[in-house]
Amino acid sequence: MSTSEMEQHPAHSLAFLTDDEHGIRVPVTEIALDDSPGGEANGPLRVYRTSGPGSDPVVGLPAYRAEWVAERGDVEPYAGRERNLLDDGRSAVRRGEASAEWKGARPVPLRAKPGRRVTQMHYARAGVVTEEMRFVALRENCDVELVRSEVAAGRAIIPSNINHPESEPMIIGKAFLVKINANIGNSAVTSSIAEEVDKLQWATKWGADTVMDLSTGDDIHTTREWIIRNSPVPIGTVPIYQALEKVNGDASKLTWEIFRDTVIEQCEQGVDYMTIHAGVLLRYVPLTAERVTGIVSRGGSIMAGWCLAHHEENFLYTHFDELCEIFAQYDVAFSLGDGLRPGSTADANDAAQFAELDTLAELTKRAWEYDVQVMVEGPGHIPFHLVRENIERQQELCDGAPFYTLGPLVTDIAPGYDHITSAIGATEIARYGTAMLCYVTPKEHLGLPNKDDVKTGVITYKIAAHAADLAKGHPGAHERDDALSKARFEFRWKDQFSLSLDPATAEAFHDETLPAEPAKTAHFCSMCGPKFCSMRISQDIRNEFGSKEAQEAIAGMREKSQEFLAAGGKVYLPETIAVGSPE
Amino acid sequence: MSTSEMEQHPAHSLAFLTDDEHGIRVPVTEIALDDSPGGEANGPLRVYRTSGPGSDPVVGLPAYRAEWVAERGDVEPYAGRERNLLDDGRSAVRRGEASAEWKGARPVPLRAKPGRRVTQMHYARAGVVTEEMRFVALRENCDVELVRSEVAAGRAIIPSNINHPESEPMIIGKAFLVKINANIGNSAVTSSIAEEVDKLQWATKWGADTVMDLSTGDDIHTTREWIIRNSPVPIGTVPIYQALEKVNGDASKLTWEIFRDTVIEQCEQGVDYMTIHAGVLLRYVPLTAERVTGIVSRGGSIMAGWCLAHHEENFLYTHFDELCEIFAQYDVAFSLGDGLRPGSTADANDAAQFAELDTLAELTKRAWEYDVQVMVEGPGHIPFHLVRENIERQQELCDGAPFYTLGPLVTDIAPGYDHITSAIGATEIARYGTAMLCYVTPKEHLGLPNKDDVKTGVITYKIAAHAADLAKGHPGAHERDDALSKARFEFRWKDQFSLSLDPATAEAFHDETLPAEPAKTAHFCSMCGPKFCSMRISQDIRNEFGSKEAQEAIAGMREKSQEFLAAGGKVYLPETIAVGSPE
Repeated sequence: MSTSEMEQHPAHSLAFLTDDEHGIRVPVTEIALDDSPGGEANGPLRVYRTSGPGSDPVVGLPAYRAEWVAERGDVEPYAGRERNLLDDGRSAVRRGEASAEWKGARPVPLRAKPGRRVTQMHYARAGVVTEEMRFVALRENCDVELVRSEVAAGRAIIPSNINHPESEPMIIGKAFLVKINANIGNSAVTSSIAEEVDKLQWATKWGADTVMDLSTGDDIHTTREWIIRNSPVPIGTVPIYQALEKVNGDASKLTWEIFRDTVIEQCEQGVDYMTIHAGVLLRYVPLTAERVTGIVSRGGSIMAGWCLAHHEENFLYTHFDELCEIFAQYDVAFSLGDGLRPGSTADANDAAQFAELDTLAELTKRAWEYDVQVMVEGPGHIPFHLVRENIERQQELCDGAPFYTLGPLVTDIAPGYDHITSAIGATEIARYGTAMLCYVTPKEHLGLPNKDDVKTGVITYKIAAHAADLAKGHPGAHERDDALSKARFEFRWKDQFSLSLDPATAEAFHDETLPAEPAKTAHFCSMCGPKFCSMRISQDIRNEFGSKEAQEAIAGMREKSQEFLAAGGKVYLPETIAVGSPE
Repeated sequence: MSTSEMEQHPAHSLAFLTDDEHGIRVPVTEIALDDSPGGEANGPLRVYRTSGPGSDPVVGLPAYRAEWVAERGDVEPYAGRERNLLDDGRSAVRRGEASAEWKGARPVPLRAKPGRRVTQMHYARAGVVTEEMRFVALRENCDVELVRSEVAAGRAIIPSNINHPESEPMIIGKAFLVKINANIGNSAVTSSIAEEVDKLQWATKWGADTVMDLSTGDDIHTTREWIIRNSPVPIGTVPIYQALEKVNGDASKLTWEIFRDTVIEQCEQGVDYMTIHAGVLLRYVPLTAERVTGIVSRGGSIMAGWCLAHHEENFLYTHFDELCEIFAQYDVAFSLGDGLRPGSTADANDAAQFAELDTLAELTKRAWEYDVQVMVEGPGHIPFHLVRENIERQQELCDGAPFYTLGPLVTDIAPGYDHITSAIGATEIARYGTAMLCYVTPKEHLGLPNKDDVKTGVITYKIAAHAADLAKGHPGAHERDDALSKARFEFRWKDQFSLSLDPATAEAFHDETLPAEPAKTAHFCSMCGPKFCSMRISQDIRNEFGSKEAQEAIAGMREKSQEFLAAGGKVYLPETIAVGSPE
């Protein structure tokens, strides 16, 4: 992507939170602020940063965590699975190679030594505080013991495949900041490897906490390699998509062996969490027959198709324990897929959806028996008044395992605006404890997101996640709001821009009405114009009543006000004027 | 505006709901739908229409309601107030005329005969069912007695100035569909009369239920004349803005006489509701001194400025009864302004805001003594968890008078995206009973909305209002969602577009990925591509389990499923496969 697009805003700079004792440095974005008109200095504001150190796409990122993983002494390098050209699809086989082979270093895969489990949950339960936990505690500005105990209890996860050492640890759990995921990936009908790496960097620049590579077209393996080697955030996938490619798109030809091989391929590459649709049981499939929109989850319908074709139980369910054993060797987290989620508000909270949730709760506890980290996926399309039931039911059934939802969309009538219909539901569901929100872009239901759509989706979801953090009273969440509001009140236009989620857009919108550079320091806003301004009058009020002496008068006036209201609030009491007078 | 922009979507047509007995015809938009793949016919869907019959801006609309008003025999024409060039500002005085005088007919103003009250509330309380009430009942698909009784109780209003006969009656109250308002109007820094009429027609095309003309620049009187004569929806204003222009923008020079003259000027033109900041009492002003953002309401700060300058009580409060007498003669509704609303989440639900609300409750009941219709304005900037308290407190204090809120915005950090930050709060506050939502555009806090911003703001607020209607279980609200979802499931792409709030945008987004015309009838979506499609598998499931016989099997399977879950949901029961088998 062009450097200008990736350039930082001039008032933003890279800074670090440091834990010297343990040699940990957490990157943050520092926003420099101007002084207030009165001359009062406004200290810089530090905000959470997801974009990482930045990388050259063909080289990749440094292996940030490799040392931490090695020092634990419980992993070993090994030859790894034999690379197979079909991993990149039929056209790669025809060509004899992927369309853009990864030229950077291919790390030797690691796995747990025999009999060992290398998951963050395993360490947390053993009382071990890992560097990943310390990094997260610094990043979230909380006690590391909160991090350890929440991971140990299964109420939070730190997705961190030992084969993705480039990633910066982050935590997903209701006790922490609400996170957002951005989906990227090619399909049978569009796009190139470079475009996908570009989208990855673009998504993390704007604030994506994790990225899912949902590629379903050619070069799936190699696209994923490029993405993981360049990703400062955890990468999630839906392995069944690649497995389906390996059987020429015919769901009935899928087998556990092909799926297992695909999972190991992805574990060795460094995928941090995988969506597994093990809750789509044969007996639940008919529950969808009367729905308005049947099964809309791609993975869910693949497994439903398989179950129908074979009249056998979902092999992801029958082989679930084997999957747990594999994930425990790489610290891959489950994202238990909601294959039967409603695809329309008419189908919300129905028998099929909740039957599957019961099974996801069962599987959550089975994974925990292997110390494997788990989050549970949720819908979808849900009318606003039914949203809360989804998170509360999931939290109760799944003993507090993190909930990870797509939206939900609260109406079906606005294709082209589903980032908005879903951000409304996302704020509601996050307020009550959903830990991560999967973004929805304006192209939802219509096509594949381009870069603008990815940006719009990420920023819209940062809004939903932040609004939920404020509603949950998350410590410090309001600092950025208050700093921006103070800047607004003081007409520090440049600070308003640099404190906003999208400074360039805010500044461009301002300039449409008042392009002149001086306007950015002018003490009026374009809504009122120079002649009259409400904010200026407010400042006159503060000048008149803001002093220490005035505060005492205000206290007195509050009493008067109470008396007045007590008196029925109807009679006009002249003496209250005297109190109001500064004389 | 160019006709192409105002053209209807090809599948949309103008139809009418008729009450032949009373000669009432309510325009609706009829959306034609294709047959389902199986050949099943899908009847056309009729949806609420706000755009009216359409008008030539220089001619205006027919005087739709004039006959109804005349037949009641309680109004009389009169010479009306002497036109004054200063009504259009200083530059008009200099020029000797407004910059684009209204060339259409200037109706002779009407007012109530001496001693009469001509408000819909007056008729409703007297048990009279007006044509306006019948029109509304047909439009809302409800019993006319519900309309009459809600208006009589003050829980709903039908803004309908007798001097705005061009308007199509609509109702604002929590028992009815949630409405949205779009703000237009020029300012000291921009725009022309034609642009404002253009924005009016554009806003009603996309679904604005009312429009407020917030002009603060030149030609205020004439701009309003053009707007009212062309408006099929009620028009609201904030008269203090024009009054301030008449005193050269110096709030301290405002007097009751100047304000009263301005109100009568606007009553004669046909303004349907006016924002009156009578709750900004002198003793409340100091309560804002410690706020992060002081007073951000323009009207509120004008009155606060006046109170400070004179150390006298707000003249809108002291002369409130006179205002009621005037409004009762024209059926102008109060929109009691929240001049002390919070301008940042930090100031939400504070002493100043709630002190003013107490006074607005007092004034609501005073207006009702004059049979004058009232709605109460609300904030503003409110964190998500504090939103609900606002509507519940207002409903309790104001005895159910309609609440009309701006957003609220649930975070301050996203200038450029405040249509989204506010739609989140708007959905929450409407869910609990707010009757009308004032839109917020992407330009909020930054500049004046252009046409694209107006469209984005209106559609975003249609989403919030509709999501709230669904959450409230409003009868029939889900029909459009279900029709669109069915079309989506059946790959009726063209129907998906024509059923959506913005068909052109939905179709354009689809075409970016799959431009070919055949794709619009293709049985796959661009997300999965032609090779595999989840919706197609769902249809296979329906084919297999959707039949009558299969339904019985499903019923049986539900039992099995219950047994299974009762049995602990862990053991794999082979017989459930047999049930799943169609053999």
